[in-house]
Amino acid sequence: MVDTLTENSKTLIMALAAQGVREYVVSPGSRNTPLALLLAESGLKLTMAVDERSAAFLALGRAKDGQRPVGLLATSGTATANYLPALAEAQATHLPLVVLTTDRPEELQGIGAPQTIGQTNLYGQQTKLALTLHLQDPHPDVQEYIAYKTQQVVQLAVSQPAGPVQLNLPLRKPLLPSLDQPWPKVMAADFGQVERRLASDELERLRSAWQGRKIMILVGPNEGHWSPDLFEQVAEQLDAPIVADILSQLRGLPHAITGLDAVLAAQADQPEMVPDVVLRFGGTPVSAKILPWLKAHQVEVYQIGANYLGQDHSRFARHHYAIDEESFLADILASEYQATNRYYQSVWQPLQAAWSSLNQSTTHKLTDFAVVDSLTHLKQPQQLFLANSMPVRDFEQYFQPHQVLSVAGNRGANGIDGTISTAVGMAMNGQPTWLAIGDLAFYHDMNGLMLARQTAVDLTIVVTNNNGGGIFSFLPQAAADQYFENLFGTPQNLAIDQVAQLYQAEYHLIEKPQDLVALTQQPWTGLRILELVTDRTSNTDVHANRLAKVKELVKHVAKH
Amino acid sequence: MVDTLTENSKTLIMALAAQGVREYVVSPGSRNTPLALLLAESGLKLTMAVDERSAAFLALGRAKDGQRPVGLLATSGTATANYLPALAEAQATHLPLVVLTTDRPEELQGIGAPQTIGQTNLYGQQTKLALTLHLQDPHPDVQEYIAYKTQQVVQLAVSQPAGPVQLNLPLRKPLLPSLDQPWPKVMAADFGQVERRLASDELERLRSAWQGRKIMILVGPNEGHWSPDLFEQVAEQLDAPIVADILSQLRGLPHAITGLDAVLAAQADQPEMVPDVVLRFGGTPVSAKILPWLKAHQVEVYQIGANYLGQDHSRFARHHYAIDEESFLADILASEYQATNRYYQSVWQPLQAAWSSLNQSTTHKLTDFAVVDSLTHLKQPQQLFLANSMPVRDFEQYFQPHQVLSVAGNRGANGIDGTISTAVGMAMNGQPTWLAIGDLAFYHDMNGLMLARQTAVDLTIVVTNNNGGGIFSFLPQAAADQYFENLFGTPQNLAIDQVAQLYQAEYHLIEKPQDLVALTQQPWTGLRILELVTDRTSNTDVHANRLAKVKELVKHVAKH
Repeated sequence: MVDTLTENSKTLIMALAAQGVREYVVSPGSRNTPLALLLAESGLKLTMAVDERSAAFLALGRAKDGQRPVGLLATSGTATANYLPALAEAQATHLPLVVLTTDRPEELQGIGAPQTIGQTNLYGQQTKLALTLHLQDPHPDVQEYIAYKTQQVVQLAVSQPAGPVQLNLPLRKPLLPSLDQPWPKVMAADFGQVERRLASDELERLRSAWQGRKIMILVGPNEGHWSPDLFEQVAEQLDAPIVADILSQLRGLPHAITGLDAVLAAQADQPEMVPDVVLRFGGTPVSAKILPWLKAHQVEVYQIGANYLGQDHSRFARHHYAIDEESFLADILASEYQATNRYYQSVWQPLQAAWSSLNQSTTHKLTDFAVVDSLTHLKQPQQLFLANSMPVRDFEQYFQPHQVLSVAGNRGANGIDGTISTAVGMAMNGQPTWLAIGDLAFYHDMNGLMLARQTAVDLTIVVTNNNGGGIFSFLPQAAADQYFENLFGTPQNLAIDQVAQLYQAEYHLIEKPQDLVALTQQPWTGLRILELVTDRTSNTDVHANRLAKVKELVKHVAKH
Repeated sequence: MVDTLTENSKTLIMALAAQGVREYVVSPGSRNTPLALLLAESGLKLTMAVDERSAAFLALGRAKDGQRPVGLLATSGTATANYLPALAEAQATHLPLVVLTTDRPEELQGIGAPQTIGQTNLYGQQTKLALTLHLQDPHPDVQEYIAYKTQQVVQLAVSQPAGPVQLNLPLRKPLLPSLDQPWPKVMAADFGQVERRLASDELERLRSAWQGRKIMILVGPNEGHWSPDLFEQVAEQLDAPIVADILSQLRGLPHAITGLDAVLAAQADQPEMVPDVVLRFGGTPVSAKILPWLKAHQVEVYQIGANYLGQDHSRFARHHYAIDEESFLADILASEYQATNRYYQSVWQPLQAAWSSLNQSTTHKLTDFAVVDSLTHLKQPQQLFLANSMPVRDFEQYFQPHQVLSVAGNRGANGIDGTISTAVGMAMNGQPTWLAIGDLAFYHDMNGLMLARQTAVDLTIVVTNNNGGGIFSFLPQAAADQYFENLFGTPQNLAIDQVAQLYQAEYHLIEKPQDLVALTQQPWTGLRILELVTDRTSNTDVHANRLAKVKELVKHVAKH
């Protein structure tokens, strides 16, 4: 006799797999036993993670890297609640996590049953959809429904704006599936591929609108892994600079410019730098200055991409194209539109050349910026993950790699939580991975180090240890002397070397930037923690010095 | 000129304080700067906690211990999402956490602004109420509303069934309050104390209903810190045994019996043990066996307490009294109702005596139960916190202290998360505190160790290190050989001694139970970690042996 729980659970697993959910992060528990066992039997890729908060961030890293849906499975109760932070980030960065929460059955809800918290729509606005499925209902329509509906749910998760979904699975005891039951056939639904392209008249309209105008390409976090080549070709054609956000994965392209944020921070911008038209791609830029700058100069902004309709927190972009980014770039290329000015060549190329020399001359002191400067020596296939709050900002302003690198961060909700776990998820693609992180974010997700060890990824964590919250020295509360250190500095006095020992990580105390540079050139395996001890109270000075140099540089270039 | 943000924020703080929110756990951030600074200025008790998940569990421990509302304050974004696990537990155990989540203002919602995730009603069913307040609105009605409404919100949180509430606080820049502005006067609302007592006829009705019947008092988790003396006096009067749940804080009373769960687990119950009437108090018992046992014997259950209306997951209790527990006990006492049978004296007293001798004879081998046996030697004012999943169950079955002790656990949603942080919150009352925990729950909340160090509590953590999930060996999946260790055992190979070193904790490896007993008799200060290495695969045998002894014992007592 067919066991209903097993049959329906296998149907669920097959239906999700048919739409691309072929990898799961599973946290151990009792209520989720049948799903865990059947996932193990399925041969799909499973990663075990005891701490569900870290589990969800690991899945986030996998989804971010692989651009495909990733499943999560937890037992009932607070276990499921631990997913919320990563789901908020997934929702903000359009990542299709498929969350399976197992639950007590209906007849145990709200009457004091243990481990029962009300999981229906637990994540509210942080998921696109929440659905309850009854895996133990023997009615044949239910099995058919599971096979049919859950494929749509995955499609909903991946369709733009993409985001996470929750399947809540109430289960009665007994919870043991039948392990020798054959896998049911599930008919894969065929969701025809749809291209969202410019309508035929639209290209002509754009060509005339842009005629003779200075065009800038602004690329924020490159959530879609859009092709650098396409961007470079379009930039060449339009003679447009690419303002390449630190997470655009485009820095290092010939037309990519990397100093704009620092120029704006130094208030060193010149009138000739201002574009007429901006083509904006990707998520919200890390720079807090660029969007207000465009607005202040009333630049015409075209926001491209179906994930980003109206996602301009300067409330300014008027042109919205819910269109596939690469199709759009290809259409521009095919249009043979030609730039009639030399915006990139005359304004940005000289500045970028000067910028490069500035960055090459500043790797001598052991400041928070030493990490930025040293890691410019990374080369493919090495990849980089940047923590909030300071590393991603410092890198935004000053990181100029010698070639295009894969650079990621949790830059939707911008939390300091789950950073190590997300980086481990990224590193599970097999490429040697660097994580630049401060000591507070490092402490927040130390449990992620366990995942690094268990997944045996090659991960180097560079901890800038300034013993507390570096960002606050840049904010107005730095003036509130009597409360500052307790409320904002929050020194944790964490012995990073002992953390390394606990997780059997190779450890180096970096005493001069050159040592860090040297390590970027050597292969390694496993988990490695590099610590730089810096002085957080001197960051504002170091920063001011850098900005003064940027001012000089812009003045100097502008004179010629 | 009065600064509106400061004036309204101070009004909020004063209004909450007027209703008893006089302590906060604060996590550093930027958006919550004004509230953090003004709380610091207020002189209310603040505890800083970088990891918001641990922060919320710390607050939970404070509220659990102090039976009063505790405030939480976080910056916007995923920081706030980290509160969800503790809020689910607070909702399930009726603890009035008052969560202040600072947020980006309305005009930055849903348009790609950083650190903005949609915080309105973020916690859904896990809070009793969610309210948004605009601290920067200068309209005089707004200040009045803040002063007036938030006092009601606290009252809602503390009124039964009690639970957490969220105040979402959208804030615009600039975020710096005025630190020299006088504190506004806030008129404290007077919420008259209400007693929920038996109506006048009701007591007579109960007296006749109970006449001549065997009465048992069943006390689950003692969420209200109800007086042990009152219970003992009522038990004496009714000749009723008190089935004292491990979290009832009543074990050690003369009428408290402690073997019932083990007796039921051993299937050694005898017909004469079955009561006619049960007066049930408190949360869901830790024992999974007691409620089904009462149902199987169709015992009349009276469920007492306004937090617990219909909270019987055996779906059986028919009599519900939404009444103050201590008033009810006092009314019974005053009624001079007298037992006409000798239920406690004839059935339970002899069993309890035999039980005591059983427990005193079993402290020789280093098993998971050695912790239970050894900690019976704790004495007031030492207090005990028990982790899920196994410690609280092991203690439920076999822990018999020599005197009434304060024993707590997170036994609403029964998660393994946040355990250390909650115990730290409990220990902040200044009493020497013991936490019994397994290695998985220990790993899950290692960040709580930082709080232990920072709050300088006197906390001894006894880690039963069986390298993985002990509970699963008791569940049916233990049969799924080929997947078991990976999916359920999940060994983490955590070096507990190195964790101790990292957090500068005193460390002892316990090699025989006597050493643990000796440590219970010695004073200590600060954080101390004791490790017992046990074999999780042998737990089922040890358990079976114990149950065999229980069977013998019951047989032996029944014969006499």
